[in-house]
Amino acid sequence: METKSSSSSNSVTIIHNAMIVTMDPESRVFKNGGIVIEQDKIKAIGQSSDILSQFSSVAHHLQIIDLHSHILLPGFINTHVHTSQQLARGIADDVDLMTWLHHRIWPYESNMTEDDSYLSTLLCGIELIHSGVTCFAEAGGQYVSGMARAVEKLGLRACLTESIMDTGEGLPTSWAMRTTDDCIQSQMELYEKHHNTADGRIRVWFGIRQIMNSTDRLLLETRNTAQELKTGIHMHVAEIPYENQFVKGNRKVEHGTVTHLEKINFLQNNLLSAHTVWVDDTEIGFLSRAGVKVSHCPAAAMRMLGFAPIREMLDSGICVSLGTDGAPSNNRMSIVDEMYLASLINKGREVYAKGTTDPTALPAETILRMGTINGAKTVLWDNEIGSLEIGKKADITVVHPNSWSMVPVHDCISSLVYSMRTENVVSVMCNGKWIMKDKKIVNVDEGEVLLAAKEASSKILKRAGISIPNRMNVL
Amino acid sequence: METKSSSSSNSVTIIHNAMIVTMDPESRVFKNGGIVIEQDKIKAIGQSSDILSQFSSVAHHLQIIDLHSHILLPGFINTHVHTSQQLARGIADDVDLMTWLHHRIWPYESNMTEDDSYLSTLLCGIELIHSGVTCFAEAGGQYVSGMARAVEKLGLRACLTESIMDTGEGLPTSWAMRTTDDCIQSQMELYEKHHNTADGRIRVWFGIRQIMNSTDRLLLETRNTAQELKTGIHMHVAEIPYENQFVKGNRKVEHGTVTHLEKINFLQNNLLSAHTVWVDDTEIGFLSRAGVKVSHCPAAAMRMLGFAPIREMLDSGICVSLGTDGAPSNNRMSIVDEMYLASLINKGREVYAKGTTDPTALPAETILRMGTINGAKTVLWDNEIGSLEIGKKADITVVHPNSWSMVPVHDCISSLVYSMRTENVVSVMCNGKWIMKDKKIVNVDEGEVLLAAKEASSKILKRAGISIPNRMNVL
Repeated sequence: METKSSSSSNSVTIIHNAMIVTMDPESRVFKNGGIVIEQDKIKAIGQSSDILSQFSSVAHHLQIIDLHSHILLPGFINTHVHTSQQLARGIADDVDLMTWLHHRIWPYESNMTEDDSYLSTLLCGIELIHSGVTCFAEAGGQYVSGMARAVEKLGLRACLTESIMDTGEGLPTSWAMRTTDDCIQSQMELYEKHHNTADGRIRVWFGIRQIMNSTDRLLLETRNTAQELKTGIHMHVAEIPYENQFVKGNRKVEHGTVTHLEKINFLQNNLLSAHTVWVDDTEIGFLSRAGVKVSHCPAAAMRMLGFAPIREMLDSGICVSLGTDGAPSNNRMSIVDEMYLASLINKGREVYAKGTTDPTALPAETILRMGTINGAKTVLWDNEIGSLEIGKKADITVVHPNSWSMVPVHDCISSLVYSMRTENVVSVMCNGKWIMKDKKIVNVDEGEVLLAAKEASSKILKRAGISIPNRMNVL
Repeated sequence: METKSSSSSNSVTIIHNAMIVTMDPESRVFKNGGIVIEQDKIKAIGQSSDILSQFSSVAHHLQIIDLHSHILLPGFINTHVHTSQQLARGIADDVDLMTWLHHRIWPYESNMTEDDSYLSTLLCGIELIHSGVTCFAEAGGQYVSGMARAVEKLGLRACLTESIMDTGEGLPTSWAMRTTDDCIQSQMELYEKHHNTADGRIRVWFGIRQIMNSTDRLLLETRNTAQELKTGIHMHVAEIPYENQFVKGNRKVEHGTVTHLEKINFLQNNLLSAHTVWVDDTEIGFLSRAGVKVSHCPAAAMRMLGFAPIREMLDSGICVSLGTDGAPSNNRMSIVDEMYLASLINKGREVYAKGTTDPTALPAETILRMGTINGAKTVLWDNEIGSLEIGKKADITVVHPNSWSMVPVHDCISSLVYSMRTENVVSVMCNGKWIMKDKKIVNVDEGEVLLAAKEASSKILKRAGISIPNRMNVL
């Protein structure tokens, strides 16, 4: 990035000579575009020449950046990520679901401290920023305060959520004693303390881990409280066939989780429904009519859950966005990879619907919307983020396409989805401030975080009594 | 990489302080290992301390490299790649198969020159090397001489194949006039000219594009000639349901391509069967008994073809390896990404076999074998490559695991398959010589190739009359 600065202050930044993919309602792409950023907001956007002639002489505290034909996009939005699980990457690969949950993830998570959570979110945040993410929705962890410290420091934007359970079998002892009232009270306190902090970059949401760990009273009080506070609810929904079986038996409904949630009037347009794999056409109708948003996590779906009917959801008008899930379910934590996967997996899935793949299913422009503007709608923040438009926040990702991984670029939009690698992301701005510049994370020392993370994660495994068997003959 | 050299010549290299994943028959992994390379071969391998004490004083022309705990692996082997299609990346995204073939790929390929093929192979080779590949099997292109020039220059190892068709509908005019005799003659000449050239790094194989473009006489003469010359045959097999339908009607057999190939006694242990998606259990039996090798290309399968029964093939003893296919079918050309995909897609596929995903299907150690030693068996070269063993060729990939994309590494083998990104590959050696060092391609100027490739690919598209429609509102 080549910067020309007329002053040490940078209240106005002009970025020009960029291919700008706005993701605005008209799907405008400026081949040689420019954008003006004042404080935390986009002040103007258009052709480079117009932007330069209109703004380069009027502003006082001015910084002008020539992007040399790099691609400029809205920051990606990761709508389902367990930041607390980052230190657990690789502890539960190739094991069955019960081992995954009871012998690896629960012992690991229940042995974390708040400082571990802070460190885990820092490590995860570094990976998110490298992959061009400017905003994420936490899927639910124990220490929202630890997460909030990390998000504030990194300069990211996030909807943070506590992991909430008021019932269920086999939970770690420390988790098994929470009452419904505790659950609601705790989240209201977190909301008071952290909502709208860090220059407005942090919002606090309500959490529901999943239906097997929730009483109906918890579901309904969560719905009511979130409505009063005008915030969102993040819940894992219809992840495995057993979940639907459980709900059919336990709640006496026809199909599964979504049918029950409809029945008790829990489905609202502030619900972020993660995964949402095992739903039938009727349930897709329920979700669509209620305006529920779905976070599709392609890697975790393939690895652990199954094929979500994404094309059908999009066809029925549901807003579907993309999530990475947590490190032990994936293990790559990059929306760039999830875009590539979402395309492949959903084209391939057509084999089972129609007997042959459909290379035209979920085209690149649809996937790019899922990673940007649909993400913003999913986290209820599309009035300020998700596209590059005048008046919106300056959350921006810069991609360098002139590398062995992308050349030749014949079709910019499909190249961003199918060829771009995480490593093509070079710079990231959130809320008007650079948080990665030329691949260097701005606000923390990456090396120090890596070192501390390795140490902390070994200690958690030791405390939790988790040991990972060797796959080969290690000498 | 820290190098200590006692002489300007480097006939003996010691690499030490590395986690060495040998992929040998005992699956040995040296936590702190060392390896001795003399000329093009591995002379010794073992614990770092033993290697250092035994070899660091005896050899004269010595180079000692401290790997600082990086991971050392056999070079990956890409068993199905169209190097000539690299310049066509992004020209056929999200279009149906007929558009893909008749309006994009055939016009593109038939308008290439030999110099274009050279450049395309250079560009593809750069991506292969960056992804840790030391050997590839060309899927078939027009200009083997162009490919050979590029492979020789880059320092890679390859099995090169001409694209061969002696029948078929709708072919470009320049391709439609080849007789069976022409096809065989041309390949024998290429074999004479290029087989075992470039210090033995280049081998020439026989090609069969696919059954719909082959007479039975071509199939049988190819089989006989390849047998006489002791070389392999590379063929696209059972790619789409229509292919099997065509063969059933045209060749009067029960199921499809594999059944017909069995019937005419074409299936032999020197056959590399690419894709091999639409095969039933009986056909898996035919392939297994004949010792046919299968190249699984997960990205292309999902995007264009369907789910190959990989678990069933492995269970029946078939040697399955990994391929990227060509850039317009993928568009990422990295075995690192294919390993990740192979795991996800084949775990997900179990949903359709058993009603639920199976996170234990195709575990990381199986996938790593597919990318290394199985690749070597597939290209009939496992006596010299595919694992790190005394006497084998020094084809080596060095991975830097201490980055945001891999930390923490709790399980080295699963981290290599699930967390490693292409960009964690830092150095690559082929035939005892570094072809990438600290991410810098050694034998060509990467920037120059990128520039020339962009120009050449635009020109081909112009000559071929291919234009790519805009997906968004480009201003």
